[in-house]
Amino acid sequence: MNYRQIIAVDAMGGDFGPSIVIAGVAEAFSKLEGTKFMLYGDRDKIGVELDKYEALKPHAEIHHTDKAISSEEKPSTAVRNSKGSSMRLAIEAVKDGRADAIVSAGNTGALMAMSKLLLRCLPGINRPAIASVMPTMTGKSVMLDLGANLTCDAEVLTQFAVLGAVYARVVQGITKPTVGLLNVGTEDMKGHEELRNAASVLSNVEFPGKYYGFIEGDDITKGTVDVVVTDGFTGNIALKTAEGVGKLSKEYLTQAFKSSPFAMLGYLLSRGAIKKMKDRVDPRKYNGGMFLGVNGVCVKSHGGSDAEGTANAIMVASNLVQNGFNQRVAAQIEQLMDQESFISVVGV
Amino acid sequence: MNYRQIIAVDAMGGDFGPSIVIAGVAEAFSKLEGTKFMLYGDRDKIGVELDKYEALKPHAEIHHTDKAISSEEKPSTAVRNSKGSSMRLAIEAVKDGRADAIVSAGNTGALMAMSKLLLRCLPGINRPAIASVMPTMTGKSVMLDLGANLTCDAEVLTQFAVLGAVYARVVQGITKPTVGLLNVGTEDMKGHEELRNAASVLSNVEFPGKYYGFIEGDDITKGTVDVVVTDGFTGNIALKTAEGVGKLSKEYLTQAFKSSPFAMLGYLLSRGAIKKMKDRVDPRKYNGGMFLGVNGVCVKSHGGSDAEGTANAIMVASNLVQNGFNQRVAAQIEQLMDQESFISVVGV
Repeated sequence: MNYRQIIAVDAMGGDFGPSIVIAGVAEAFSKLEGTKFMLYGDRDKIGVELDKYEALKPHAEIHHTDKAISSEEKPSTAVRNSKGSSMRLAIEAVKDGRADAIVSAGNTGALMAMSKLLLRCLPGINRPAIASVMPTMTGKSVMLDLGANLTCDAEVLTQFAVLGAVYARVVQGITKPTVGLLNVGTEDMKGHEELRNAASVLSNVEFPGKYYGFIEGDDITKGTVDVVVTDGFTGNIALKTAEGVGKLSKEYLTQAFKSSPFAMLGYLLSRGAIKKMKDRVDPRKYNGGMFLGVNGVCVKSHGGSDAEGTANAIMVASNLVQNGFNQRVAAQIEQLMDQESFISVVGV
Repeated sequence: MNYRQIIAVDAMGGDFGPSIVIAGVAEAFSKLEGTKFMLYGDRDKIGVELDKYEALKPHAEIHHTDKAISSEEKPSTAVRNSKGSSMRLAIEAVKDGRADAIVSAGNTGALMAMSKLLLRCLPGINRPAIASVMPTMTGKSVMLDLGANLTCDAEVLTQFAVLGAVYARVVQGITKPTVGLLNVGTEDMKGHEELRNAASVLSNVEFPGKYYGFIEGDDITKGTVDVVVTDGFTGNIALKTAEGVGKLSKEYLTQAFKSSPFAMLGYLLSRGAIKKMKDRVDPRKYNGGMFLGVNGVCVKSHGGSDAEGTANAIMVASNLVQNGFNQRVAAQIEQLMDQESFISVVGV
């Protein structure tokens, strides 16, 4: 049978292992025509789960291994001892061209280190970034880096801008996506030198997006730009702060509805609408950290994801494959690097 | 008449000028016994507003000046041309001991630069931080720096920990406040070198708080610690991201209640509870960025504050004065600097 795409899945990753991962694969399978899954991990544990999904079974291959990488392990140690692990075998399937994408809910640091080591970066990309889609007042934006690189120079930030802009264009269908650099103010003189240099490059080069300027923290959810570019330290803290505030709002709302009989009745009446509102910011909908810039599609699912979240991460991977994201980036980066204004600032 | 405290107010700061500032002063005056206000700015504009508040009038002095610092001005330019401005005159009142605190809703950068220049830092403090109180799942925490210093070494971060811990102890009444360093993970090897060095100092010195360890972005609202310490770049972005997510949640909730007749009825019934919930995260309640580490009490009110927000910023300043915050810090810092474990890491 001819498949449109083959997705390798690390079935042992995440807090719950195969039971949740395979349920997620089954859910994604029902939405993705012509997809084959290669499942890496314990044959018995995967088999038991797979038996529950008759439709999926003929399109899923189990690749047995006893070995799995723990989520507690230090990335460098994990990589050193990774031979034959479910995560590594799944990445190798992409490396050898047997699969189009890899999805794992395992150790993030190990997954990033191993992807870089085995798949390498796309030509012209110095360092891959973790990117994710975020809900905003006006729709959705993509933000990167969310934690792969603690510090980033102007060259790396410019490459992130290209990665984000290509993503917004080819996956989200925005013809000329706006790109903002996250900073502590919007004036030209604000922030670190790397940010000011990146701003100078992005103002002067041709790239798939349109440089908007510096943006501040509250611009992320305002939807001021389509692509938010930042270093991995700042991005990680902004993302987790946002998650924390989301939970705080939810908790305060729950407490409010429980605070009086009137409020409880009010809740019963507005329950449907409140549920829809919660759905809009449901973390499962935004699950799937994309490792953009890696030469191969690699998506990290949240360790605590349920089946729906896992399915979403698989859909994210499929979107990158189906839209030829990596090929488009390679072409754009080549164009970027030829430009005088890029060369003069980053000095490559 | 004998006053408990005298507060100098830059009446020309903020987006709305004296009309809002004086209304805020009047509101704070009604809550603060024995307080005198020195109001700096245009005598006529202040006078007109002051006429509206009979009780306040005998306890408020107008100090006329035509000059005000624009909120658009670059801090360095603003400082250079600051002589005789309402902001500078108000700071000078604190410098000369004629006032106990200064509150301004004007240009943040100019206020910080001028405070440092005129008031200097507390003995043993290298750089002041902007600190603010944040709502959490379990109560409130204090976070610093929110934007005064883009990069901070271990010594400065340690001083921030002391400033935050003294604040939590003397103003919030927490005997042994916990202090966390904001980072991208909780493991020892995570983050920048400065963070790891600061962690090493804080684990080994005696200071007014208890060092908890590294915390992540979502710990801010979880209330994991009483004091969140970070550099000004990260803190500024985390704070504004949190504000943005708060607004997004509010907007989604409003849309949800408007989405059907049932939901609207539900809103009518739960309105009181929802209002209480919104009050809990009302930015006006958290208005007042404290310039901790400056040798003089200086509080920045948000430029867009209304009278209630302005009054809150004045209350924040009064709390610092009444609890002898600066005197307590000076004593603690001296103790800290004498400790071997501090000296060995930061190398002072």
